[in-house]
Amino acid sequence: MAAAAYKLILLRHGESEWNAKNLFTGWVDVNLNEKGEKEAVRGGELLKDAGLLPDVVHTSVLKRAIRTSQIALDAADRLWIPVRRSWRLNERHYGALQGKDKAQTLAEFGEEQFMLWRRSYDTPPPVLQDGADFSQSDDPRYAAIPPELRPRTECLKDVVDRMLPYWYDGIVPDLISGHTVLIAAHGNSLRALVKHLDNVSDADIAGLNIPTGVPLAYELDADFHPLISGGTYLDPDAAAASIEAVKNQGKK
Amino acid sequence: MAAAAYKLILLRHGESEWNAKNLFTGWVDVNLNEKGEKEAVRGGELLKDAGLLPDVVHTSVLKRAIRTSQIALDAADRLWIPVRRSWRLNERHYGALQGKDKAQTLAEFGEEQFMLWRRSYDTPPPVLQDGADFSQSDDPRYAAIPPELRPRTECLKDVVDRMLPYWYDGIVPDLISGHTVLIAAHGNSLRALVKHLDNVSDADIAGLNIPTGVPLAYELDADFHPLISGGTYLDPDAAAASIEAVKNQGKK
Repeated sequence: MAAAAYKLILLRHGESEWNAKNLFTGWVDVNLNEKGEKEAVRGGELLKDAGLLPDVVHTSVLKRAIRTSQIALDAADRLWIPVRRSWRLNERHYGALQGKDKAQTLAEFGEEQFMLWRRSYDTPPPVLQDGADFSQSDDPRYAAIPPELRPRTECLKDVVDRMLPYWYDGIVPDLISGHTVLIAAHGNSLRALVKHLDNVSDADIAGLNIPTGVPLAYELDADFHPLISGGTYLDPDAAAASIEAVKNQGKK
Repeated sequence: MAAAAYKLILLRHGESEWNAKNLFTGWVDVNLNEKGEKEAVRGGELLKDAGLLPDVVHTSVLKRAIRTSQIALDAADRLWIPVRRSWRLNERHYGALQGKDKAQTLAEFGEEQFMLWRRSYDTPPPVLQDGADFSQSDDPRYAAIPPELRPRTECLKDVVDRMLPYWYDGIVPDLISGHTVLIAAHGNSLRALVKHLDNVSDADIAGLNIPTGVPLAYELDADFHPLISGGTYLDPDAAAASIEAVKNQGKK
């Protein structure tokens, strides 16, 4: 086995106010709920217990990922490490589905269309018009993104395309500096990264779910290839249970 | 009056577990208590109500300042802004007084010595030896500071000397970029900055106290001189009350 050159930890935020309500969230900046805060504490404790202490943290610009990082780092006594953020780590933009009830959307459009929007690699939901409800077109945090770059809907392929420049330009340099890097982000931005790291096919990525609140540790070789494909969950049992729960979203 | 070129906001953290216990803290990484958390929320609400929204935040590497920034920015709905940290914004290193009771120290050494340590510009307390109780000599967050630079005790003059390079190299460039800059830090690192900005004499700085939890807003001209000497507190009444309380510390 190749020697480990780099250490990377992925952490998906826990339950948010809208996860609990079963609404499509995307770029809507909802907060963690109390369960999500507890998941973040547990995530930080797992890091601390494993002695896997981040030297730098990268987050999206969405509150549920930022607060997850803050709560987890506090629990791991690493609140003082450098922080970097990018909209390129944001959750997938869910287009016109943002703010809609998942079960209602399933009932309205049928299972085939619903699963296509949720899980197909290259079919985005309908566009969310600027200025519409649940649009972020006037949000100052995105003011520096020119109109042609700013998402109005995204499929997972779109997320891969906009996330990868930040992987190469923002995160890889920190790994090369010898830092253990924590990325606190979202189901789909992390799936996009895992797809890249583990070279998952466009077809197979549909079946890959990332559990919330359980740190996923990767050791990478000098070419940034994982020593263990899929990485290692710091709490495998909790990860398996969480994956099962994510799979059943929308099916109630 | 000259035109305002730059906007700067200073925020001193609120009550910590050791403020409440009346202990010298310095570089010991104690947490905010519940009162301190409430002060941070209030600080963020004052920013929001004034429409004075930071574009970037600078903090020390101490938890009480970091959490103050996080709580205040959450309350102001600006959790997503870029974050920068430096040990150069840390509280004054209190040397061998760290961890000691203020009232007991006053009783033991007398008012003259006590006030000299607390308020003289250039008399540091006795050195805290590496490895002693309440020393940070093994703390990984300071591993990149070489031994000759790492404080073992500091007077306010020492704080000015180590803080100013970060003002020039870390903060001024953000101001020049047009950002409204928030600095979340400590009584003495902020006094050091105010001394510099307002050109306060070595003698007069002894009488200057900075209130906790009340944002202090400066508008600076193109040469980084304040348009209003001393800046403007977003809640002047609360600021006056807090200054009075700080003055009386150790006198119980």
